[in-house]
Amino acid sequence: MTLPVTIRETSSCCTPPLSSSVTSEDAERIAHVFKALADPTRVRLMSLIAAAEGGEACICDLIDPVGLSQGTVSHHMKLLAEAGLVTREQRGKWAYFALADGALDAVAASLRALR
Amino acid sequence: MTLPVTIRETSSCCTPPLSSSVTSEDAERIAHVFKALADPTRVRLMSLIAAAEGGEACICDLIDPVGLSQGTVSHHMKLLAEAGLVTREQRGKWAYFALADGALDAVAASLRALR
Repeated sequence: MTLPVTIRETSSCCTPPLSSSVTSEDAERIAHVFKALADPTRVRLMSLIAAAEGGEACICDLIDPVGLSQGTVSHHMKLLAEAGLVTREQRGKWAYFALADGALDAVAASLRALR
Repeated sequence: MTLPVTIRETSSCCTPPLSSSVTSEDAERIAHVFKALADPTRVRLMSLIAAAEGGEACICDLIDPVGLSQGTVSHHMKLLAEAGLVTREQRGKWAYFALADGALDAVAASLRALR
């Protein structure tokens, strides 16, 4: 009696190597922007600025809605500005923030690069 | 002689309070998904899967392109799956990953909520 023999291909030798249109530099840049948005407070701050009259908000008006200290809100705003998501203008005592033109469009374009 | 007096409004009492359409719960959920994309390796893994034939990739084919150990790649894939960005199917020895239907559309919608 002969037992049936099944040869199973267990290696992945015949699959063509995967490649991506996203370079390492692209990936770093995309991840950096998402990192700035990867915090609930910063998501709310972006949303508050977007909804503000004239599209800009004084930091003095951002403190109450998120319920954090001015220092903490300033720190979050600094990270958003460094990621290029908001612009900052100092007027006297207060800093005013607006969404950076095209910043969220650039993020959306990054997402399209992932599919 | 009388000195001119300028009354400057320094408080922000007359600005209507800022409000946002994004609730705290929304912000938590949005930030969680962004956090999964806030890493260059995970951005590249998403892009590799999107570009793979049939829209799915064996973890065995994801290791070489990112140049990390299988354990590290598995960890990154676990975070992407937990955020709902990819689906996972075990076939024998290997796990296969595909982009979750509509996951990137949901991210794009979250971005639109911020403006």
